[in-house]
Amino acid sequence: MIKVGVVGGTGYTGVELLRLLCRHPDVDLVAITSRGEAGMAVSDIFPSLRHRVNLKFVAPQDAELEKCDAVFFATPNGIAMKQAAELVAAGVRVIDLAADFRIRDIAEWEKWYGMEHAAPALVAEAVYGLPELNREQIRSARVLANPGCYPTAVQLGFLPLIEAGLIDCGHLIADAKSGVSGAGRKAEIHTLLPEAADSFKAYGVAGHRHLPEIRQGLSRVAGKPVELTFVPHLTPLIRGIHATLYGRLLPGAGELDLQALYEERYAGEAFVDVMPAGSHPETRSVRASNICRIAVHRPQGGDTVVVLSVIDNLVKGAAGQAVQNLNIMFGLDEEAGLDIVPVSP
Amino acid sequence: MIKVGVVGGTGYTGVELLRLLCRHPDVDLVAITSRGEAGMAVSDIFPSLRHRVNLKFVAPQDAELEKCDAVFFATPNGIAMKQAAELVAAGVRVIDLAADFRIRDIAEWEKWYGMEHAAPALVAEAVYGLPELNREQIRSARVLANPGCYPTAVQLGFLPLIEAGLIDCGHLIADAKSGVSGAGRKAEIHTLLPEAADSFKAYGVAGHRHLPEIRQGLSRVAGKPVELTFVPHLTPLIRGIHATLYGRLLPGAGELDLQALYEERYAGEAFVDVMPAGSHPETRSVRASNICRIAVHRPQGGDTVVVLSVIDNLVKGAAGQAVQNLNIMFGLDEEAGLDIVPVSP
Amino acid sequence: MIKVGVVGGTGYTGVELLRLLCRHPDVDLVAITSRGEAGMAVSDIFPSLRHRVNLKFVAPQDAELEKCDAVFFATPNGIAMKQAAELVAAGVRVIDLAADFRIRDIAEWEKWYGMEHAAPALVAEAVYGLPELNREQIRSARVLANPGCYPTAVQLGFLPLIEAGLIDCGHLIADAKSGVSGAGRKAEIHTLLPEAADSFKAYGVAGHRHLPEIRQGLSRVAGKPVELTFVPHLTPLIRGIHATLYGRLLPGAGELDLQALYEERYAGEAFVDVMPAGSHPETRSVRASNICRIAVHRPQGGDTVVVLSVIDNLVKGAAGQAVQNLNIMFGLDEEAGLDIVPVSP
Amino acid sequence: MIKVGVVGGTGYTGVELLRLLCRHPDVDLVAITSRGEAGMAVSDIFPSLRHRVNLKFVAPQDAELEKCDAVFFATPNGIAMKQAAELVAAGVRVIDLAADFRIRDIAEWEKWYGMEHAAPALVAEAVYGLPELNREQIRSARVLANPGCYPTAVQLGFLPLIEAGLIDCGHLIADAKSGVSGAGRKAEIHTLLPEAADSFKAYGVAGHRHLPEIRQGLSRVAGKPVELTFVPHLTPLIRGIHATLYGRLLPGAGELDLQALYEERYAGEAFVDVMPAGSHPETRSVRASNICRIAVHRPQGGDTVVVLSVIDNLVKGAAGQAVQNLNIMFGLDEEAGLDIVPVSP
Repeated sequence: MIKVGVVGGTGYTGVELLRLLCRHPDVDLVAITSRGEAGMAVSDIFPSLRHRVNLKFVAPQDAELEKCDAVFFATPNGIAMKQAAELVAAGVRVIDLAADFRIRDIAEWEKWYGMEHAAPALVAEAVYGLPELNREQIRSARVLANPGCYPTAVQLGFLPLIEAGLIDCGHLIADAKSGVSGAGRKAEIHTLLPEAADSFKAYGVAGHRHLPEIRQGLSRVAGKPVELTFVPHLTPLIRGIHATLYGRLLPGAGELDLQALYEERYAGEAFVDVMPAGSHPETRSVRASNICRIAVHRPQGGDTVVVLSVIDNLVKGAAGQAVQNLNIMFGLDEEAGLDIVPVSP
Repeated sequence: MIKVGVVGGTGYTGVELLRLLCRHPDVDLVAITSRGEAGMAVSDIFPSLRHRVNLKFVAPQDAELEKCDAVFFATPNGIAMKQAAELVAAGVRVIDLAADFRIRDIAEWEKWYGMEHAAPALVAEAVYGLPELNREQIRSARVLANPGCYPTAVQLGFLPLIEAGLIDCGHLIADAKSGVSGAGRKAEIHTLLPEAADSFKAYGVAGHRHLPEIRQGLSRVAGKPVELTFVPHLTPLIRGIHATLYGRLLPGAGELDLQALYEERYAGEAFVDVMPAGSHPETRSVRASNICRIAVHRPQGGDTVVVLSVIDNLVKGAAGQAVQNLNIMFGLDEEAGLDIVPVSP
Repeated sequence: MIKVGVVGGTGYTGVELLRLLCRHPDVDLVAITSRGEAGMAVSDIFPSLRHRVNLKFVAPQDAELEKCDAVFFATPNGIAMKQAAELVAAGVRVIDLAADFRIRDIAEWEKWYGMEHAAPALVAEAVYGLPELNREQIRSARVLANPGCYPTAVQLGFLPLIEAGLIDCGHLIADAKSGVSGAGRKAEIHTLLPEAADSFKAYGVAGHRHLPEIRQGLSRVAGKPVELTFVPHLTPLIRGIHATLYGRLLPGAGELDLQALYEERYAGEAFVDVMPAGSHPETRSVRASNICRIAVHRPQGGDTVVVLSVIDNLVKGAAGQAVQNLNIMFGLDEEAGLDIVPVSP
Repeated sequence: MIKVGVVGGTGYTGVELLRLLCRHPDVDLVAITSRGEAGMAVSDIFPSLRHRVNLKFVAPQDAELEKCDAVFFATPNGIAMKQAAELVAAGVRVIDLAADFRIRDIAEWEKWYGMEHAAPALVAEAVYGLPELNREQIRSARVLANPGCYPTAVQLGFLPLIEAGLIDCGHLIADAKSGVSGAGRKAEIHTLLPEAADSFKAYGVAGHRHLPEIRQGLSRVAGKPVELTFVPHLTPLIRGIHATLYGRLLPGAGELDLQALYEERYAGEAFVDVMPAGSHPETRSVRASNICRIAVHRPQGGDTVVVLSVIDNLVKGAAGQAVQNLNIMFGLDEEAGLDIVPVSP
């Protein structure tokens, strides 16, 4: 059994980690920290976990995390970068669900995240945990940067086209829609039900923190800088991301069978499901599961390709992908603990 | 492995059965019938089941259901009563998720359901499948009447008080609220999202089909006829029932420890969770799981007791309870296939 | 034109007041205060009011409220009681949408609201602004206590039965369901969309602040103390309250025509609509309007009467009723500014 | 007073027309037809209109529509084209909220709508009722084609850029999201609350009927054929459309002040509100009103312009725009009957 700790268990990614880890056959959940709720039973705050997680939240300093085999950080940005080095030195493998280790360019990170980076050396060695792209490096990672929710949906959607060199990388468009849990479990006005229900809006059009992360990932695959217009939207879902991706096919590319391209790219991937031609995947078809479903379209046979990519932002976009990475890092069955049938309706 | 067939797999209780059965360790799902969708792959209609259920719907006459060990009817009322006898004769054990075998008084059933009953003899032998009440009889049932969603929440909430003889059985009140999936997967105006979202209403105040079912169950426990005012409401949830129950304590009853009464009554029950005193269980705390959570209150120490009882109407209120009954009938671990952590948020 | 000020314009009742007042034909909206947003244009925070309300929020001390004819307090509890006396002395008529002047028993108020009352004398002279009960006293009120949302729905529902002496006042039950805007526009976790959407729960079963208000109002009508079990619930609506009321008919009362009783009681009331016999009013049928719709039922002809009462909690349950009271106080057409057709779907 | 009839009053555009017309100061609503509900009181089916609309539905043949000054068709596609000629001959002005007169190319219309057109001559004379584009022709229209919901949001968003010749018309992208009422008040599975709530999906990527309508409108403005990729999505709102529009600025265009361009284009338009630079309009900011709010962005100063355009699909996208057109056609104040403050929250 792998001994696992969770730092910051009261946010949505934290409680989702607990939902997954408490029934993971190879994991022994030994500590869950919370600065604010230390001493409280986890199940008193999250009744859905009653009789499943019998731990109490402990203060970070009391958690003995260095005795764990792996520690997940489900904390706000800027926490893991301060604590990871000590754990790594103790032989603990660190999986950060926040953004601290995602951007390799420290200056770029500091610009978007508005703080000084505390551990540039760890960024250099950290592995970006998109298994469908980086599985080999993930196996031996000591510090794993779990991807953002939008970046997961967008990159998985664009990858086959970019790897095959079929689209104009200078003008990619990602029109992405997220459920409200993506904003976190924080006391704020704009995500109150009366504010966010029965309404729809874009946000962050001028620039969103996930833009440099997506750009970095796709540029690496393209072998050159890509340009992306990324427009996130808030939609009245609890969970779910739907990315609608637009690219212009390069001359000649139109003769390829895009459906076959996608199916071949993701053959063997347990958590990426290429839908039949003509499909429109719904976010509910992946609800509560670690699956990304993708459909590729070429409307009216023109030179614009449209890719639809859906995930559950809390699972494949956060906690589930983190568990998938844990499984890879520890040589477990990649699907261990993640065999959840999506809940629909 | 138990060979299982599902008749009527395209409604909400049917697809929920498939979600549960496809990962049940002791079940081999061999046939799913649908008159309207015969020949279609299950996963084409329900993409959430892609790569999980690889069957096609078959026409009822082609299903060879008599070769199954157990057959679930997830059909409209009036179907199972016509087909069960033949299956039972062939040694198949029948679990009906509709109402055909729930009411023992045939005339009463015919009044509420508006049709002639086709199999009164099977009603006489059928077992009412509320495991927390009837576990022993369920073990040997050949025909099992799976309880309705409201009746499950209401009966589990009232049982300890009635068994202990603590409340006035002449004036029980059940104010129950259901998510919209309770109305079924039927093309109707009143359950369209623009009709049912962001609105709340009562319905069937003059009389609802679940009233006689609840009355029958509670009267049997009370040993005398109970009188119940039952008001169902439609609330903009996908899933979930919240029953708020009111009873008047009989003189002297007020000195008992109601919390202890409930905890003792349900000690050992895997799927009934008595919450700590003062709790207000939320429907989402049981979402997608087979759990019923109950809290008992006595506001201001008066003689009115208030019980809060929540279930997922599609799970403990339908498909999950049906699987629980299957487990009991076949001597399996009662929790087999039902170890789902509620999905929250 | 009546010069009107609004104290505390950034909560839901405040912004709803602005929606109604900005098109009221007899009102000149002259000042809107906000401690936190002073200097901001109202329409920058509430874009729905762009080109409708062209004022900026001002700090309370800069508002010259004493020059108004009427001032609404859409503030948290405990604010109006400190500021009303000075305004009243200046001849301004005060309408408080919070609870400061609702409970006549000061000790009772202090127990439920957890603070010392600053203006008991004003409580003594304040008029409780339920027009269908107190229209005459409202005309001359200097300090008006606008009723709470639950108390409006519950009292209007029970009034005809209690006035006619038909029900047992010792055991009333009000099972009430509120949309989430009733919790106010406050940064809190439990009303975030991911917490409150697609879920349903009771709260405050042990005791809710609206209980003493309802009890006071109904007791006054009954001419004796009434006993009420009041269970509020949070339901995933933006707006709307549905009260389901239960009372036991006294011997002999069952022979009366309850439908006629209700129709006669509310004949001539512009904002109370008694629905046809057998109706189930939906909250959306009053959305955005000042209407209360009521239906009265007697299930199975028994001795339990069930009343269904729906309002928009922000209109008839708050801002709309406050405008209705303003109209009465200033001798205007009672419907002025309130001729809004409900928005459905 | 203008005598008005409504054909097909039981769909969402029909009942929304009734909401608006029943309080229009210059309109006398004289007949509402429904084949299915003839004889029923309008308010029995739509309780939100109780005491507002006191008519009964009449069968089409009994409606004496030829005595009206104007008749709205809120019918499915293919009805108005069969009935309009006779009304026009009788001097009645016809406003069709369906698609019968929107597409000037009859063959194109027949391809997308799958039926033969019954009145090509009327198509030739019909005026496309987008007032911000066609106000002068609307004044004298005998047959008015009220625009579709998506086409309204998309065209108003793109117009200033195309009129000014600033963007590449060969590669426009419209990523549009609609509330579920856009699918109509029809008994269908896919728009049931349990299907459409808490989920998000694209649909019609291969081709949607509103594509040729938008292409026709924008091409006329551009003076040459435009190419548009149009991807509609279903989002769990009751009402609202959010169009996110993408265009590539032509060389040199980037030096223009796009904000000023939009503000000047729509100066004087009562129902188009250009938001301040940097804004993200929400659909709820126009809920229940006839307003279109637009924001224009140029992320990171690149050559991709992003326009956000929101409307209430039932108002500016249907019934409200139809009333606006009526006002123009009859020389009334263009805002008559449309002075509704958006309902938010």
